[in-house]
Amino acid sequence: MGQLERIGVSLDKNLLLTFDTLISKQGYQSRSEAIRNLIRQQLSQRRLSDPKTKAVAAVFMVYDHHATKLSDRLIDLQHCVPAKRGPSHLLQVISSLHVHLNEHDCLEVVVLRGRVSEINSMAENILSLKGVKLGRINLLATEPA
Amino acid sequence: MGQLERIGVSLDKNLLLTFDTLISKQGYQSRSEAIRNLIRQQLSQRRLSDPKTKAVAAVFMVYDHHATKLSDRLIDLQHCVPAKRGPSHLLQVISSLHVHLNEHDCLEVVVLRGRVSEINSMAENILSLKGVKLGRINLLATEPA
Amino acid sequence: MGQLERIGVSLDKNLLLTFDTLISKQGYQSRSEAIRNLIRQQLSQRRLSDPKTKAVAAVFMVYDHHATKLSDRLIDLQHCVPAKRGPSHLLQVISSLHVHLNEHDCLEVVVLRGRVSEINSMAENILSLKGVKLGRINLLATEPA
Amino acid sequence: MGQLERIGVSLDKNLLLTFDTLISKQGYQSRSEAIRNLIRQQLSQRRLSDPKTKAVAAVFMVYDHHATKLSDRLIDLQHCVPAKRGPSHLLQVISSLHVHLNEHDCLEVVVLRGRVSEINSMAENILSLKGVKLGRINLLATEPA
Repeated sequence: MGQLERIGVSLDKNLLLTFDTLISKQGYQSRSEAIRNLIRQQLSQRRLSDPKTKAVAAVFMVYDHHATKLSDRLIDLQHCVPAKRGPSHLLQVISSLHVHLNEHDCLEVVVLRGRVSEINSMAENILSLKGVKLGRINLLATEPA
Repeated sequence: MGQLERIGVSLDKNLLLTFDTLISKQGYQSRSEAIRNLIRQQLSQRRLSDPKTKAVAAVFMVYDHHATKLSDRLIDLQHCVPAKRGPSHLLQVISSLHVHLNEHDCLEVVVLRGRVSEINSMAENILSLKGVKLGRINLLATEPA
Repeated sequence: MGQLERIGVSLDKNLLLTFDTLISKQGYQSRSEAIRNLIRQQLSQRRLSDPKTKAVAAVFMVYDHHATKLSDRLIDLQHCVPAKRGPSHLLQVISSLHVHLNEHDCLEVVVLRGRVSEINSMAENILSLKGVKLGRINLLATEPA
Repeated sequence: MGQLERIGVSLDKNLLLTFDTLISKQGYQSRSEAIRNLIRQQLSQRRLSDPKTKAVAAVFMVYDHHATKLSDRLIDLQHCVPAKRGPSHLLQVISSLHVHLNEHDCLEVVVLRGRVSEINSMAENILSLKGVKLGRINLLATEPA
């Protein structure tokens, strides 16, 4: 973290009270911390609307592990990225996490890094694999803010 | 607006610079105004996760005005609410706005007021009408904050 | 609506039962209607991720009507669009709807038409006006699908 | 997967063409697979609006690993859950994944299981820890559908 600045914010007493109640329930130790997070979320959200922004993403999916060869194809998809696009390419699968949910279903979280547009298209490829039942993708902008 | 309070917020210089750039682009005249809006949005968002919260909603839909009797059914649906549920009931259609988009399609915005759960179920009824092609619902919590 | 085609979809019996229960509760008269709507929503959602897509939007805001001159500035903002950008420009405010919520607050829905990026920047300008307390923007892609 | 049923869906030729183009780009091997996924997503989404629904979630956050003791507090928070609430309690941290993003920042994904309301409040506690810069929570309903 760089140099700190202190700014003044004026707001309605009732709004402040309600906000204080919420953030203490959420576990924040200071208003500054809570407000910084609101600001960062908004900046991140806004940058993500540009397909060229660099981001990190978690593709989050539930799949049937009996689906023939899904695990193999997932691993292929994850590993073929640098091969297919060359080592200098931005899109990278960084890591993945696997959880057994029940006798049929697994949860897998795949962490990707790249431009928003590339991540989205990679995520669509993952979520369209046969046997994937539910999926979602979460993006966070990582460029300097 | 009630009584104003002034609080201090400390944050990283770079974060502040990026935020200042964003809000000036958005047209805000002061940081306080922008931060108040972030706070209000978050409080509203959070209250909406409780199905019993009182809210106001805009159901926003595109429909084919050639669809037989859709307009009639929309009007029925809007007018039957108090009748069916009694005049004291919370769910109300307040107003609606109609726009011709092209030779086939109209846009209609219906403003509703009620509990989150009631609004959602009314909105689903509207969006499922034959001829409605696209729809979305926007909720804002109106309870004191 | 153009020519109809009929396709076959195979799905798990339990999934179908749950879906049938949901759509009958939502008021759909046929599965085809419900599935068409899911497809249209997804196509619209996807097109909206491109800033150049033509869309229609409803900017939905709650504001304090005591805020000096907010109504005037809202009207200015709505009317200056074609003037500032020339009559051939795509961004247009089509219509707006105003509702009195209580002694302080009004709800206003402004319907805009234009490219996603232009709509978003116009919406930000509206939502940053002094006195606007809460706002949200809803986009629907209108390009042929 | 249980017993399969086959249903017929009628839709506009142009809508079908656009859908086919999209799903082939996404990598789907059949329309049925793509439509099943749309249906499952909608059912999951709808169930999540009930705070009592059982779900699995990934809390996804970026944090500054220099923040004193954040890692310790994260681990505490994850481990104290069953202790504080008793072994029979539904809320469980299942697993977590840690990625180094750069010299300052780490990404952590924490997979939780429980009721929607419990998961949300646990997630808020995690995201409010000092040093957490950005966070997001993803929920998927796991109850039978």
